[in-house]
Amino acid sequence: MFQSATNEIDDLKDLQFLVEVLYVSIDPAMRGWISDVENYSEPVPINGTMRSFGVGKIISSKHENFKVNEYVVGWLGWQKFSIVDESKIQIKIDPQKAPLSKNLGILGLNGITAYAGFINICKPNKNDVVVITTAAGSVGSAVGQLAKIYGCRTIGLTSSNKKADICKSKFGYDEVINYKQTNDLSNTLKKIAPNGIDCFFDNVGGIQFDAVMENLNVNARIVICGTIGMPSFPIPVGPRVNRTLLIKRAKIEGLLVLDYLNEYQEIYNKLLKWYDEGKLVGEEDISDGLESAPASLVKILNGLNLGKQLVKL
Amino acid sequence: MFQSATNEIDDLKDLQFLVEVLYVSIDPAMRGWISDVENYSEPVPINGTMRSFGVGKIISSKHENFKVNEYVVGWLGWQKFSIVDESKIQIKIDPQKAPLSKNLGILGLNGITAYAGFINICKPNKNDVVVITTAAGSVGSAVGQLAKIYGCRTIGLTSSNKKADICKSKFGYDEVINYKQTNDLSNTLKKIAPNGIDCFFDNVGGIQFDAVMENLNVNARIVICGTIGMPSFPIPVGPRVNRTLLIKRAKIEGLLVLDYLNEYQEIYNKLLKWYDEGKLVGEEDISDGLESAPASLVKILNGLNLGKQLVKL
Repeated sequence: MFQSATNEIDDLKDLQFLVEVLYVSIDPAMRGWISDVENYSEPVPINGTMRSFGVGKIISSKHENFKVNEYVVGWLGWQKFSIVDESKIQIKIDPQKAPLSKNLGILGLNGITAYAGFINICKPNKNDVVVITTAAGSVGSAVGQLAKIYGCRTIGLTSSNKKADICKSKFGYDEVINYKQTNDLSNTLKKIAPNGIDCFFDNVGGIQFDAVMENLNVNARIVICGTIGMPSFPIPVGPRVNRTLLIKRAKIEGLLVLDYLNEYQEIYNKLLKWYDEGKLVGEEDISDGLESAPASLVKILNGLNLGKQLVKL
Repeated sequence: MFQSATNEIDDLKDLQFLVEVLYVSIDPAMRGWISDVENYSEPVPINGTMRSFGVGKIISSKHENFKVNEYVVGWLGWQKFSIVDESKIQIKIDPQKAPLSKNLGILGLNGITAYAGFINICKPNKNDVVVITTAAGSVGSAVGQLAKIYGCRTIGLTSSNKKADICKSKFGYDEVINYKQTNDLSNTLKKIAPNGIDCFFDNVGGIQFDAVMENLNVNARIVICGTIGMPSFPIPVGPRVNRTLLIKRAKIEGLLVLDYLNEYQEIYNKLLKWYDEGKLVGEEDISDGLESAPASLVKILNGLNLGKQLVKL
């Protein structure tokens, strides 16, 4: 359960600075951060500030490299003001280059995630057939667009006709499947990709994952970026993948974007270039006021958002 | 069903040569080659010669680079004499360097498989904790020894106390578990490797695989080299791996040694050096006469061999 609380702002210590938070990010991964199951990071403690990425403006500083009126992106938390040191900050941004909110979506962790998973792990080749789940989502849509930039053929899986339309019109997918309107997803994929799937960027797990596994090409590369379509606990059962991986000499790899934070600036620069050229766009779903954050989290866990979910403060 | 047949030897065409087959290999993969299920290669046709690796001596030749009295390793089949061209041959060997039979085991496809999977895919680091299934087998024991050469800590899983003894005394495993005498393999592994498993070379799938998956370290690398502990069809169910791969940022990759044949000579030279230094040994289980081949195949599928199964002609 989330509660709001008001506290005095502490005095800054040396090397700290005070950031006025302007937007905070709402992410599916937060389900894990507030769950009492094994995860890649410690759970947010009871009565702790909810962990989140944010963008904000420095309004007071005791660090010579972080000056008042500069804009930063980093771990600011669900709060109006955040006292941080350099370790919490990913990059400084120029507010002239793109709207502030974009730095939490297509130019933020979503874009970085898409790049790290698709480019670093899938290592796409021109004309590869690429399948993406949550194709209209903030990470999925970024992968879909990156795949087109790299000359691949893209097949998006999504959960509504409205999202399917956006996949085609905004994100340039070659093919889109509303998996909820398909009786036999495996067979539908087989018809669309008779020579098999080369790259698979998966955010869901479960039956969509299974259907793609039945249609892999030799040497397929699969990124597990999320498992939002599967319960966390107990571990669900499904078809064993071992023999498929063996006969297709395929690879599955789990991706955690936090492992790529040292490449953030470098990847950001590439994403910003494609954004400038109009090759990368990001939809946003922005709610107003910090009080709307918990409901926004529930909304994305139910797949009801259209684009990157943010809260504007 | 296997049948023996006697045929006249055809005349050699240009670029062909006739090899007297001296040893043939018996491999678990043959289960797949003679099954009517999807595989990485065409099934052996009904009434066709059983596909297999062999070592032999050239006794007649119409190819200037393959001379009479030279020894070769390649796809010779379960037959006494084999007419082949260069495309069927992996390497020429010097019979002075190692007993002929070794070129089908520790210095043959087994050693190449172990090297390709463990070195190329697992990319071991010193002090990595490495788990190997079928630890006493011809591939598993080669991986175990390579892991020691690379400074890793090795844990072997095997199916009998006799094999466990060999793992310790011949192959230098640091720890060996007879999984048939363990009630809770996952917990046994947790005690032996409390900081988690870095590399996993799996030849079986199923419950041994599941137990290792519950004990991965971050950034674990898993090679699927075989699935002999799982039925081929229908696809069995088991715990879904997606979330484990995600939170551990782990990688699973299927290995087919046939993808590495262009590196055969290079890997062979490395294996031969370690063999010369006494760092790599291979057990052999040799039966006599081609008629014994089918029974030898059944024997290895039941896990009753001790070392690389060969037939001496």
